[in-house]
Amino acid sequence: MRWITILFLAIVIALTILAALPFASGKADDQASAAPVYGIRIPARYRDWRLISVNHLAGGSLKQVRAQLGNDIAIKAFRDGKLPFPDGTIIAALHWKENSSEANNKVLAIGFPGAGLESFVPESAANVQFMVKDSKKYAATGGWGFADFTNGKPGDEALHKTCFPCHQPAKDRDYVFTRYAPTP
Amino acid sequence: MRWITILFLAIVIALTILAALPFASGKADDQASAAPVYGIRIPARYRDWRLISVNHLAGGSLKQVRAQLGNDIAIKAFRDGKLPFPDGTIIAALHWKENSSEANNKVLAIGFPGAGLESFVPESAANVQFMVKDSKKYAATGGWGFADFTNGKPGDEALHKTCFPCHQPAKDRDYVFTRYAPTP
Repeated sequence: MRWITILFLAIVIALTILAALPFASGKADDQASAAPVYGIRIPARYRDWRLISVNHLAGGSLKQVRAQLGNDIAIKAFRDGKLPFPDGTIIAALHWKENSSEANNKVLAIGFPGAGLESFVPESAANVQFMVKDSKKYAATGGWGFADFTNGKPGDEALHKTCFPCHQPAKDRDYVFTRYAPTP
Repeated sequence: MRWITILFLAIVIALTILAALPFASGKADDQASAAPVYGIRIPARYRDWRLISVNHLAGGSLKQVRAQLGNDIAIKAFRDGKLPFPDGTIIAALHWKENSSEANNKVLAIGFPGAGLESFVPESAANVQFMVKDSKKYAATGGWGFADFTNGKPGDEALHKTCFPCHQPAKDRDYVFTRYAPTP
């Protein structure tokens, strides 16, 4: 029966290596993408989260279209109008460099003749930001941790130190600027 | 054992009433909101669908921020880059009248001094539009049915007759203008 023992050991070793490999590489990725100051990583599948609102920036050089998505805890809190947001809330802010869409503009010229309408769409991904609520861990910053990523890489420590001061004017809305967009 | 029979019947009757009530009221709502030409109703819980993209309209009187959401079939097709879209695809286009956000602008002035940035956010719901793929039912219009609702009420027949002609320039993308926004 020695060959059975050897086969069994070989299978155990193979399975151990298989199980360890993705874990090790996953861990490495996580470590690579941890943002400074607050230690936040990009939440898995955040693009599947539900829509809170949209906005766009104009008037300057930073012309962007933006969307805010929320995890289940965030969406429930926004819909219930609940403040402060409960621990576990995560809000994702997706930012895209915008561009005028020729295809859309042609159609708008047909649909709304003479209106001079112009449609701006995402041209490329700019960055994504997260607000993570943990009232104990982030007690010093209103209960929120902040993170900013460009191409999956976190911004530096200096950048992350600007997050909370910028959000302080929204203290009466638990430091969150975004309001839930009404459902049309 | 007669009381058991009576109890059983009472439970059956109670459950039947409970089951019928929401169905009846849901049906009434549905009938009220059926759009002309294509007979499409507002899909239940479409606001929970996942994000395809965002855009905004500028340069004319129709200043809007917009989001496109997709049901599961739509999201899979967009992510796979699959054309034509499979039957069952539904794309929702949510349109909001936009307004400049004073609160956001103050923060942008601090975060980006001198950049003159302005943030535009949803002020109020404008309308919502749906594209529903059914290659047999809507064979005459590229396999798509179209619907437009304002405050839950469908637009008129004349409006709905303009949908397909406007989408024809996007024939090579299965009549869909929206492209999937890259994940930042």
